[in-house]
Amino acid sequence: MRIGILTSGGDCPGLNAVIRAAVLTGIKEYDFEFVGLRDGWRGLVQGDVRTLNRSAVRGISRVGGTILGTSRTNPYDAEGGGADNIAATMKRLGIDGIIAIGGEGTLAGAKRLADDGIPVLGVPKTIDNDLAATDYTFGFDTAVEIATEAGDRLRTTGDSHMRCMVLEVMGRHVGWIALHSGISVGAHAILIPEHPMTIEEISEYVRSVYDRGRAPLVVVSEGFKLAGMDEEYSRKGVDASNRPRLGGISEMLAPMIEEATGIESRSTVLGHIQRGGAPTGSDRVLATRFGIAAVRAAADGEWGSMVALRGTEIERVSFAEALGELKTVPQSRYEEIKHLFG
Amino acid sequence: MRIGILTSGGDCPGLNAVIRAAVLTGIKEYDFEFVGLRDGWRGLVQGDVRTLNRSAVRGISRVGGTILGTSRTNPYDAEGGGADNIAATMKRLGIDGIIAIGGEGTLAGAKRLADDGIPVLGVPKTIDNDLAATDYTFGFDTAVEIATEAGDRLRTTGDSHMRCMVLEVMGRHVGWIALHSGISVGAHAILIPEHPMTIEEISEYVRSVYDRGRAPLVVVSEGFKLAGMDEEYSRKGVDASNRPRLGGISEMLAPMIEEATGIESRSTVLGHIQRGGAPTGSDRVLATRFGIAAVRAAADGEWGSMVALRGTEIERVSFAEALGELKTVPQSRYEEIKHLFG
Amino acid sequence: MRIGILTSGGDCPGLNAVIRAAVLTGIKEYDFEFVGLRDGWRGLVQGDVRTLNRSAVRGISRVGGTILGTSRTNPYDAEGGGADNIAATMKRLGIDGIIAIGGEGTLAGAKRLADDGIPVLGVPKTIDNDLAATDYTFGFDTAVEIATEAGDRLRTTGDSHMRCMVLEVMGRHVGWIALHSGISVGAHAILIPEHPMTIEEISEYVRSVYDRGRAPLVVVSEGFKLAGMDEEYSRKGVDASNRPRLGGISEMLAPMIEEATGIESRSTVLGHIQRGGAPTGSDRVLATRFGIAAVRAAADGEWGSMVALRGTEIERVSFAEALGELKTVPQSRYEEIKHLFG
Amino acid sequence: MRIGILTSGGDCPGLNAVIRAAVLTGIKEYDFEFVGLRDGWRGLVQGDVRTLNRSAVRGISRVGGTILGTSRTNPYDAEGGGADNIAATMKRLGIDGIIAIGGEGTLAGAKRLADDGIPVLGVPKTIDNDLAATDYTFGFDTAVEIATEAGDRLRTTGDSHMRCMVLEVMGRHVGWIALHSGISVGAHAILIPEHPMTIEEISEYVRSVYDRGRAPLVVVSEGFKLAGMDEEYSRKGVDASNRPRLGGISEMLAPMIEEATGIESRSTVLGHIQRGGAPTGSDRVLATRFGIAAVRAAADGEWGSMVALRGTEIERVSFAEALGELKTVPQSRYEEIKHLFG
Repeated sequence: MRIGILTSGGDCPGLNAVIRAAVLTGIKEYDFEFVGLRDGWRGLVQGDVRTLNRSAVRGISRVGGTILGTSRTNPYDAEGGGADNIAATMKRLGIDGIIAIGGEGTLAGAKRLADDGIPVLGVPKTIDNDLAATDYTFGFDTAVEIATEAGDRLRTTGDSHMRCMVLEVMGRHVGWIALHSGISVGAHAILIPEHPMTIEEISEYVRSVYDRGRAPLVVVSEGFKLAGMDEEYSRKGVDASNRPRLGGISEMLAPMIEEATGIESRSTVLGHIQRGGAPTGSDRVLATRFGIAAVRAAADGEWGSMVALRGTEIERVSFAEALGELKTVPQSRYEEIKHLFG
Repeated sequence: MRIGILTSGGDCPGLNAVIRAAVLTGIKEYDFEFVGLRDGWRGLVQGDVRTLNRSAVRGISRVGGTILGTSRTNPYDAEGGGADNIAATMKRLGIDGIIAIGGEGTLAGAKRLADDGIPVLGVPKTIDNDLAATDYTFGFDTAVEIATEAGDRLRTTGDSHMRCMVLEVMGRHVGWIALHSGISVGAHAILIPEHPMTIEEISEYVRSVYDRGRAPLVVVSEGFKLAGMDEEYSRKGVDASNRPRLGGISEMLAPMIEEATGIESRSTVLGHIQRGGAPTGSDRVLATRFGIAAVRAAADGEWGSMVALRGTEIERVSFAEALGELKTVPQSRYEEIKHLFG
Repeated sequence: MRIGILTSGGDCPGLNAVIRAAVLTGIKEYDFEFVGLRDGWRGLVQGDVRTLNRSAVRGISRVGGTILGTSRTNPYDAEGGGADNIAATMKRLGIDGIIAIGGEGTLAGAKRLADDGIPVLGVPKTIDNDLAATDYTFGFDTAVEIATEAGDRLRTTGDSHMRCMVLEVMGRHVGWIALHSGISVGAHAILIPEHPMTIEEISEYVRSVYDRGRAPLVVVSEGFKLAGMDEEYSRKGVDASNRPRLGGISEMLAPMIEEATGIESRSTVLGHIQRGGAPTGSDRVLATRFGIAAVRAAADGEWGSMVALRGTEIERVSFAEALGELKTVPQSRYEEIKHLFG
Repeated sequence: MRIGILTSGGDCPGLNAVIRAAVLTGIKEYDFEFVGLRDGWRGLVQGDVRTLNRSAVRGISRVGGTILGTSRTNPYDAEGGGADNIAATMKRLGIDGIIAIGGEGTLAGAKRLADDGIPVLGVPKTIDNDLAATDYTFGFDTAVEIATEAGDRLRTTGDSHMRCMVLEVMGRHVGWIALHSGISVGAHAILIPEHPMTIEEISEYVRSVYDRGRAPLVVVSEGFKLAGMDEEYSRKGVDASNRPRLGGISEMLAPMIEEATGIESRSTVLGHIQRGGAPTGSDRVLATRFGIAAVRAAADGEWGSMVALRGTEIERVSFAEALGELKTVPQSRYEEIKHLFG
């Protein structure tokens, strides 16, 4: 059997560990061959491939990013796309099946291809931890660790100047990275998309911390929205085009907190460093297990499924299951830690 | 309610995060008071306590070790020990219940006290990940991370000299740290207590790696035993008292590998640095959740139980359940990664 | 002798190591006493002090920030300021001399006080490495290390997406952090205040890297100015008040590079995490040596001087020497590495 | 011009950064060609070479070890060695000059070859920082940083159990790594080869720390020798063959301290992890500057010299100067920090 592997969507620490484990296990356990499809679905629809043998995957599990490149190409929209074209390309290249590593968009594409008869398997990838079908995926742990190191650093400079430090972490739609890194650094407030707050509520936490003689530390998801934010904008006459985009929430919050409390406030946006670089040991282990499980599913002919972590086990789930609703932070998890605030 | 907290047995990154979360949640959610019992059960049997208020737990969740100190005192054997004496001491100090954070020995003591009517709750602690009742506990992730960093470093020096590097990690009875850190660093052989191997088998892996032009990297649990090791000793006339103790297995293996393969081999014993220092973000989160859950169990009067991680949830389990057999690495987990070897 | 210590200006990893070393050496070698002046010169002019004994400095050398707090108060402008008032305050508090740890502004204040007869000693602090009197100061090495880790991470995500990554590091007036961290991460262009470039020159580097099949990595000082930037603004009709402030140069550059080259570009601003958190070993050593040298200078009655690193030795220099021109990156150092660009 | 590069002796973080900088600068600034000589002098005497072009050095400056391999081959003793043979080999391979990166033995070989008319340049390498001709070399900073991280970790586990922790670091003949990492972690005693102490003196420090309620932390160079150690052995009847070798001093000290003080003591030997893995930013900068300077010296025809760091400048020195006496820790540097002890 000859399997094509692709990585699609935003990159994530651990992608290479998936690739390496799949290739080594496939070659040594099942005598499979592998080709790498360049830049996600683009490599498949355009038949742009590279060799994936043992030496190609040597030492890559501790390297961030993806050796295969990635893109946001959709397998149906692209030129050469669609199930028929892809089937033809696979036949031409002698590829019997596809392992697609990616997030919700990628898996949705994979599902549609599977429904159209293409033998494809999914490996879930989401730094934000927003896929319901799996307890965790690789990359999330690394992102939390990087945010933890940054928050630990911000705390001491905050304390020295008695400033409120606002740390913005990834999480467009869900607050998992903010929740975990906020707990980890002992944040005095954690602001997540699932739980809008007013600037008054936030300022209340900030002030109470300051009044106890400590420098407030706030961790905020990039996707957090202030309760009443739109009204606030209107009140100030801020035009929609000038309202902060995703990724800039902390830069808006810091001056608002400063204005509301009189406490000097500073913003830090972690941004891309959360998704680059060497994965944590924990992410390498999970990614390796996913890679092994994917190739075993291929050997079992279980096309159309996706691997997932459930407790301590790697299981196979249907794409449909994987593509249900977004896994948001449940209210109970947020309530659990609210007494650590303020 | 006034609760005594103690940490017992070997220290572990995350202990302080448990303490902090329990104290903050207890004070703010339930209006509890807390005292710290010094040096594990010793503090309880001798009534040696310290204050645990908000300022005492400030900023400790990122600090390794335990602010309460620890010891291996047994609550029944020590002077002042036994349920009756302890009940009297608790009464005298106004302590209504105990949260005991510790490993199997500690939890066995806690169970016996609970059976004898002392209100006590358990929080599981084991760097080695050998408690069956919980998916993971804090400290394990940090130990794997430290071993991963060490293994990544050993690899480059091994490659430069074409030496076989043998890295010994913690794990007296179970191989979890070696398994996870070995996967993480891409070890060419992982040697664990659950899976004895002969020196010939190990050498076979080492030689095949070397013959492919790579420097072999072996990760070994401190508790690994060579298959046929005792026979080997006898053959060489090595007296029992001179046989390597736990903690020295890599120092025995490296010269044996060198002798068997002719490949220069070096040993590194990570030792105590695996259990000290700042916990990973992931361990801080888990420890914090355990601390919160323990104090909530106290509020619910659920004495005699232990908190545990099951999937992504924190649950309460009975001590009996916690104290079943050692959680060893199942053969399936070892088989899963064997094609990454050699 | 009773010595007051203060830290002033922006915080910096290593301040606490200076304090600890001065206090321990002073107490044990000279039988001195110490008081901490809170929040820089504010503590001196307002007589706001705290105890600095052995237990107060326990374990602080590895903690970022300053346990004494800091501010930008000027000893002459503040209420209670000026040499006469300060002399009176010192007499009242029984303080015989001052060790002032700070950057150029702080040292200028210290010089003026010394000229006015106040016994004061300086310890140089500048994360940016812009003081000519000393080869290096503590904090710089930590900032370079943090920027190095961030750059290493950005590289892998850049490679995966074939994006140009622009990393902004500290350095308002001098490019040392950008130079060293740029070398360290293997940046394809390093942009520093001392060496303006046009967007065309930058784009040329970026494009040539991309054309070789690599993802361009640009490191830029916050104080870098585009050659012809003001003209560019005028051309685009951008009002002065909307031109990027210091600290936002990378956010301006990334879209300009993208526009000029057609290569997707992303910006990351490291900001405050460069100045917080645990100092590197190297910074702890330098800071410790400065603290020891300062207290020895006090013992020798060498008031009015500042400690400085020259080669591998700590020497005493006059304030006047310390306050000469800014230490910029010499053209030769920039030329040295230009062949690593592109 | 066509230059051969070799790395010889023990590996060291930063070797690859030297190679990369020399190759890039040589190719781009001077149009030189490069070949890599495999495994130190062995590659030269046996004419075993590999290509060193731009793509061969891509991204290697952050990778530990050496891509060229290393060995302890002596250019005069080896088969094919000696100046005449080497000159013939160089002619055959079209190599016009050699850049040899190594420690004292390597540089001594280089000097002899230079004296015999072979065009050779030196780049100093010593993790131990024992070469007098240069203020520092790359690798030392990384080793100190790794020892600092380990010491920080040991401290918390020591504190929890009130144990004396003994950390052994590299340094066979000089105590620089122990001195700097000992200062950095706030060790209560630093034991270096230059300053023998008796077990009674060491125990005195340990006891006084313990009596103040703290867990003693001792940092010791591998080459430290107890004052009166030989007498001690004789007294105990320990045969010479059973006396600890270099590398095992901490394992001897810990039980001796425990016996002398009654304080539980534990040993950790860092070993090979100090020399592997990614160099610190500071080491990458220094190594890069050395590589650039070496190729510039070649362009200037300055064969027979070695590059060296003096203050903040890279200079050229004669081999003779480089090979003077070992750079030991001067008594003044040791005295400087003695009040931080105990």
